[in-house]
Amino acid sequence: MLSHNQIKLIRSLKQKKYRQQHGLFVVEGLKSIVEFVNAAYVIKYLFTIDSSFAKQHEGVAVTEKQLSQISYLKSPNKALAVFQIPKPKDIDFSKLIVALDDIGDPGNLGTIIRLCDWFGVQDLLCSHHTADCYNEKVVQASMGSLSRVNVSYVDLPDFLQAYPHPILGTFMDGATVYNTELPEKALVVMGNEGNGISAAVEALVTSKISIPQFGLQQPTESLNVATATAIMLNEFRRHAY
Amino acid sequence: MLSHNQIKLIRSLKQKKYRQQHGLFVVEGLKSIVEFVNAAYVIKYLFTIDSSFAKQHEGVAVTEKQLSQISYLKSPNKALAVFQIPKPKDIDFSKLIVALDDIGDPGNLGTIIRLCDWFGVQDLLCSHHTADCYNEKVVQASMGSLSRVNVSYVDLPDFLQAYPHPILGTFMDGATVYNTELPEKALVVMGNEGNGISAAVEALVTSKISIPQFGLQQPTESLNVATATAIMLNEFRRHAY
Repeated sequence: MLSHNQIKLIRSLKQKKYRQQHGLFVVEGLKSIVEFVNAAYVIKYLFTIDSSFAKQHEGVAVTEKQLSQISYLKSPNKALAVFQIPKPKDIDFSKLIVALDDIGDPGNLGTIIRLCDWFGVQDLLCSHHTADCYNEKVVQASMGSLSRVNVSYVDLPDFLQAYPHPILGTFMDGATVYNTELPEKALVVMGNEGNGISAAVEALVTSKISIPQFGLQQPTESLNVATATAIMLNEFRRHAY
Repeated sequence: MLSHNQIKLIRSLKQKKYRQQHGLFVVEGLKSIVEFVNAAYVIKYLFTIDSSFAKQHEGVAVTEKQLSQISYLKSPNKALAVFQIPKPKDIDFSKLIVALDDIGDPGNLGTIIRLCDWFGVQDLLCSHHTADCYNEKVVQASMGSLSRVNVSYVDLPDFLQAYPHPILGTFMDGATVYNTELPEKALVVMGNEGNGISAAVEALVTSKISIPQFGLQQPTESLNVATATAIMLNEFRRHAY
């Protein structure tokens, strides 16, 4: 019930070029799979050791050994599904948008997707050098939230040049976010883990902001980009609460 | 210059029982080591491939091969130091205290230590089932911040029973943090990744708070505990800003 070609396909989907070639990605775990199904993602294959789950979602019941042959996890969850990568939806310019300028770590990207979901940010823009949101580590870290956030990969400077509302960027030396106007129609850029926001993007930022530091650290220390995003999104939302 | 017994000791320090037996822990990386030195931690051994760094800190110059024999990292950094575990300092009841009720993931604990450092929280209390702050993954994730935060392991319910100021706990169904009074003399409890705050601790919480959710997720979804801590600490600090 699990063919050699299916095993080969699923293993190949660990690589971005094969995900893009086939237009497919992998989700593991009953809970996450249900969230993608509920969000109307098109399921291509479903393999599970839970026979009632297989029945319910028209999947294939497999043994634990078979599941471990295709799972990307050390301890496989109860199910693995292959979904079609959807076309990104149109970006809604009337709402808060988050943009990522070369976020490299899949765990950070997954956490940021989860934060967008929590704070009701519909559109997440990623520069082309940002990690791929269909990377299995991103899918895992986003815990199903990827199914509800519209992630688009764009040429970030090009996009920002045409964007009509305020562009806020987080910098070490920006004005404190506590005293900054945070409009509802705006875009907030978060920079790369090591290098921050690139010069090309910085030139297009209309307002430089920062999160005040209260401890005794060296000024070169910074917050992790995912925790900084958590604080920024909370600031935007509490403002309108 | 690197004895068999030293190799054996350093390898043993991966385990909590040997860290406790010897009162020692390992820090890797030039930058982090300097931060612990600057914070007056007592250095027991220093091994480095950087001979000027070895000279400066009275360490031992080793080869890359020797360093890879003792390093806990896949790609060893330029130096590894063994420090003495300090005695926790007295807890300052007049300032904001963060308490962790069984945080299991070392990465989460490291990120929370880094957040305490950023937001100037001096005292971090950990329940006995919280991950060990001298675990190498915690030390790595805290990026030197562990040298500036006073981490104490306590019987959390016992401690809270005697604590004289408000005890705030984060719950899914608490009052929104935006409308809650956040006193400067207070303690905020963050709960376990899967189970939240335990019943014994919940009974001692004087104010249940939560971070409002703006997206469309299921009510069972939650924020990652490290991002939730980021938001809570920012709320406390912006309040007094």
